[in-house]
Amino acid sequence: VTTDPALAADPAGSAASRPGIVRVRLTVAYDGSAFHGMAANRGVTTVAGTLAEALERVLGEAVELSVAGRTDKGVHAHGQVVSFDAPAEGLDLAGTARAVNAICGPEIAVRDAAVVAADFDARFSATWRSYRYTVLNRPDPDPFLARTAWWVPSPLALPSLRLGCDPLIGEHDFSSFCRRPKGAGADVSMVRRVLDARWRDLGDGRLRFDIRANAFCHQMVRSIVGLLVDVGRGRRRAGDVAAIRAAGDRAAVPTIAPPHGLCLGEVGYPG
Amino acid sequence: VTTDPALAADPAGSAASRPGIVRVRLTVAYDGSAFHGMAANRGVTTVAGTLAEALERVLGEAVELSVAGRTDKGVHAHGQVVSFDAPAEGLDLAGTARAVNAICGPEIAVRDAAVVAADFDARFSATWRSYRYTVLNRPDPDPFLARTAWWVPSPLALPSLRLGCDPLIGEHDFSSFCRRPKGAGADVSMVRRVLDARWRDLGDGRLRFDIRANAFCHQMVRSIVGLLVDVGRGRRRAGDVAAIRAAGDRAAVPTIAPPHGLCLGEVGYPG
Repeated sequence: VTTDPALAADPAGSAASRPGIVRVRLTVAYDGSAFHGMAANRGVTTVAGTLAEALERVLGEAVELSVAGRTDKGVHAHGQVVSFDAPAEGLDLAGTARAVNAICGPEIAVRDAAVVAADFDARFSATWRSYRYTVLNRPDPDPFLARTAWWVPSPLALPSLRLGCDPLIGEHDFSSFCRRPKGAGADVSMVRRVLDARWRDLGDGRLRFDIRANAFCHQMVRSIVGLLVDVGRGRRRAGDVAAIRAAGDRAAVPTIAPPHGLCLGEVGYPG
Repeated sequence: VTTDPALAADPAGSAASRPGIVRVRLTVAYDGSAFHGMAANRGVTTVAGTLAEALERVLGEAVELSVAGRTDKGVHAHGQVVSFDAPAEGLDLAGTARAVNAICGPEIAVRDAAVVAADFDARFSATWRSYRYTVLNRPDPDPFLARTAWWVPSPLALPSLRLGCDPLIGEHDFSSFCRRPKGAGADVSMVRRVLDARWRDLGDGRLRFDIRANAFCHQMVRSIVGLLVDVGRGRRRAGDVAAIRAAGDRAAVPTIAPPHGLCLGEVGYPG
């Protein structure tokens, strides 16, 4: 019997209590173009569904995945993290990763596989997530970025994009930027703590927005990028971002950046 | 009447002799994944066919394209060059490029459009072409490079890859590396002048082979990369490349690198 309060939030239960079972963590990259999002969902092809099926074939039994970030349809990931329980006996993690990669095809890649503490949970142990959003800001498009960057041909003012980030840092109610879950009551909190938000100029017209927070609510990054890009092209003013955030009014942010420019970057855990 | 001997090789004829007509040069990038190669070909979707159709819609009349590099099915281009004749009156090049990009979709992008000298021909005026071939050499694949890099999980020795380049530089008969055109007689020359060939380490396991030559014969770059990768993984020796080249025997180069790692880089012209 453990008294660690983190375990209370662990839906899969503690692997520690089950002999012969270990908890496994996978770090996974995927091109989300072909998937109906991360989370398993009946009748459509999702990343988690595809991964779980491959793991079941390789391990010989069904797994239940915990997922760090529930990316939407069309959204990519560089360092998504999932965890699950597996039988310890004969477990070959490198071989499992290779086999899963072969089964899943080129759109999904297991980058790392490790046995972790029995109380590790990809979703509930995470202390922060980072996302990146890439904008291609130049008159001509780039076929090689068509799947991973939002092409915005009209000029964006980088100083305005940067100025618009400041009011987002810190702990705030992000209701203006978030889609409420269906049937969610008014008591569902949209308060999140943004640790960092900045734009980088990667050259050749590529602008990348990096944002890190304890957690994100639904459509938060795409709504923030939509507003900031409107600021960058002069439709909104950087000085208005604080008031828009404070208003708590989703109608104040009409532009939602398309999903294909978004990528879950990394997920942070204690230690 | 011009006496420039280059015009003798110009199949479209000199635009100079036709009043009201100008010659146009487009620089084009494309993701070749969805195309049956560059050259127009009945019954299949090609880059040149798609471009020519879009140009006809925008310009209101059919165009005949001259193409600098006839890339194969699945091969990409960063700086492909095409030329054609168009009516001078009311010609809006920037508008044409925008409209063609909108029609062609995200896989093709006109990067630049310019009126050039009447005797310019994308194919026959070119003095060199460069190609790049990207290998992803690490144990785990990368979903974002799945369409543009050859994933080779077994370790490659970069010094051997580099050593293997030396015997390729200069003017040589490249019959060992080239597929003869169907029905071509023994008199078809496979002599090409390679100006530069080198491997770059781009980090994260990405190795890029850059090669520049006056011209290339069919499958030449992919065959060279196939041999060099076999050298890099120890199946062949760098010291054997010169003899393999000199043998003029296509059977000596059994590995042909897959097309999706290949990209036509730039095309050079006088002046």
